[in-house]
Amino acid sequence: MIYFDNAATTKPSESALVKAEKFIKDDYFNPSALYRGGLSCAKEISCARESVLKNLGLSPSKYEVIFTSCGSESDNTAIFCCNKRGAYVTDNGEHSAVYKSFLELNARKIETHFVGLNKDGSVKTEELFDYVKNNNVSFVSIVHVNNETGAINNIGFIADTIKKINPSIIFHSDGVQAYGKIPFTFSDNIDMYSVSAHKINALKGCGALIKKRGINIKPLIFGGGQEGGLRSGTENVFGIKVFEYAGAEHYANLHDNYNKIGEINNFIRKNLDKTLFTVLSGENASPYVLGVSAQGLRGEVIMHSLEEQNIIVGNGSACSSRNRFSRVLEACGHNRDILDGVIRVSFSVNNTLSEAREFVEKINDIARKLKGIMG
Amino acid sequence: MIYFDNAATTKPSESALVKAEKFIKDDYFNPSALYRGGLSCAKEISCARESVLKNLGLSPSKYEVIFTSCGSESDNTAIFCCNKRGAYVTDNGEHSAVYKSFLELNARKIETHFVGLNKDGSVKTEELFDYVKNNNVSFVSIVHVNNETGAINNIGFIADTIKKINPSIIFHSDGVQAYGKIPFTFSDNIDMYSVSAHKINALKGCGALIKKRGINIKPLIFGGGQEGGLRSGTENVFGIKVFEYAGAEHYANLHDNYNKIGEINNFIRKNLDKTLFTVLSGENASPYVLGVSAQGLRGEVIMHSLEEQNIIVGNGSACSSRNRFSRVLEACGHNRDILDGVIRVSFSVNNTLSEAREFVEKINDIARKLKGIMG
Repeated sequence: MIYFDNAATTKPSESALVKAEKFIKDDYFNPSALYRGGLSCAKEISCARESVLKNLGLSPSKYEVIFTSCGSESDNTAIFCCNKRGAYVTDNGEHSAVYKSFLELNARKIETHFVGLNKDGSVKTEELFDYVKNNNVSFVSIVHVNNETGAINNIGFIADTIKKINPSIIFHSDGVQAYGKIPFTFSDNIDMYSVSAHKINALKGCGALIKKRGINIKPLIFGGGQEGGLRSGTENVFGIKVFEYAGAEHYANLHDNYNKIGEINNFIRKNLDKTLFTVLSGENASPYVLGVSAQGLRGEVIMHSLEEQNIIVGNGSACSSRNRFSRVLEACGHNRDILDGVIRVSFSVNNTLSEAREFVEKINDIARKLKGIMG
Repeated sequence: MIYFDNAATTKPSESALVKAEKFIKDDYFNPSALYRGGLSCAKEISCARESVLKNLGLSPSKYEVIFTSCGSESDNTAIFCCNKRGAYVTDNGEHSAVYKSFLELNARKIETHFVGLNKDGSVKTEELFDYVKNNNVSFVSIVHVNNETGAINNIGFIADTIKKINPSIIFHSDGVQAYGKIPFTFSDNIDMYSVSAHKINALKGCGALIKKRGINIKPLIFGGGQEGGLRSGTENVFGIKVFEYAGAEHYANLHDNYNKIGEINNFIRKNLDKTLFTVLSGENASPYVLGVSAQGLRGEVIMHSLEEQNIIVGNGSACSSRNRFSRVLEACGHNRDILDGVIRVSFSVNNTLSEAREFVEKINDIARKLKGIMG
């Protein structure tokens, strides 16, 4: 099987699983327990926290890591738990975890504003900065890497600019498609950053919110006071350790992986039949996500045809794949013909150039046949 | 090692892990994806839902299962997402996930009331019913099995009585220490019921809220619309399947397990040196939890002495074990001498009578020696 739906979820790393296995087989203790086994599990979680910060070049004296159950929970925690007065601003390219949370803010009578997108899915930064200049804004959330086109927003620059305009604004970014994939320098002006384990070959059921110390938030989940009182519930030690190990594997080879995936991505871009496919991802997009459209055809039909040949791709964001059109790609300004034909091809460190070769051959063939049938 | 801290967490079932392994090794797909692998994962989650309901004798036409990341999240969802006017009522014997959520309701200017406890940790039902009769109550949450004494509240009777007084009240129960352990009949008047995976030999990072259809709640976590729109975030398929399999194992032998654990519990009750130990759990408590106190000694010291002999017990609830005294046992009316000496002995299906024998011998010995040293 060629698995090219890695932006939806990834295959857990076997080495990370093997290394973490003891946390379900032997060291299954509750990290809040005061005997050795419990204390040792608590220490293991501390190591995982440090590892996440180290990967991003952050100091534990400046930042803290709150482990959550997923990227969506991290986003929700950032958005709902600041309790700031003033407008909340985001953009039309967000993952549903941010987008739907903003709709809920709206329902709670909190002023919200959604900034528009460029054709490639990146945020219209001038529009954002203008809005921040001319309004009483308290919170801004801008996705780091768009999960449908791979567009990279320069969140360091965005955070820096926004804070120059208004230093009291809280800046959050959903980094779920960036962490472990994109080399970048974490700006001091980023207050909170959401990451997810299962997007980098770790397990579903684990995520984290990275938060600058001094930024006060309330918990989303109250209880035993785990995670420094900011996220209650018995810690998912196994999930956290797999996340740590998979993260370390990704960061040990971040640049090499980036280049390798870049080659795969470029090969596909170059060799897709241009008379049949439009590439929706920009030149500077994350190589891990390639949005393409077979305009005039149905993305779903292509997806299923590929599946019959043992190649798995996504059609739009899996997280909202029950809708016909992608809300995000509509916001990029694509027409219905393009929107109907969208498939998302997304990669992980497990993919190879020879898979890309087979993929291109087959998808070109499928699209040609479908076009032939139709016309 | 003798592990007697199963109310804090349990060792994952090896057979359940083996059975579910394929969901991290091969079938790691995103259940929202529209290709076969994704659809099949979605179907597997549906099976897990049905299994949870079947275990409790509930019909899928009347009840639904919302998978969450833990019991705490289930409790928080039930408490914060009903948005009812009127007083919220609970009791002083709740797990922190309910108790602290009620304190937060308070902070949000919602009227709350905490009903008192009997000496064994069970809820003073007459006090509860009186309060419900004389006040405008909209929500009641009563724990099924107290996690420190094992006291079983007859939540069916409580729910029935409350609904007779005021049918519009929403009734929720935290069933984390009951599910998979206590045989009981689920009353139609229970609107929501929280359960947790890692308390029944499944994994940390998974829980569920069982909810009567027609009871309207909002999500705690917004996003991709998973779990019928009530809990977003990519589903933790592996965690959910281990939960299903471990649950099925527990319910296949529910009565046998109950009797077996009852024997273990009774053996310890009978053979603890009565001059040294006071049993805090009532006669009708869940056999899975045995609260005892070596009054005049420190529970923590006994815990560590046992640990040196490879026996693991808890001191009070692990979830709040950073506090000196147990809030719940204080509410039962115990004095400081008792409170200081508390240890919690709690069992799982893995425990044996011979472990109980060894435990009793050693704990009696430890307490005698400590008393001797002290004078």
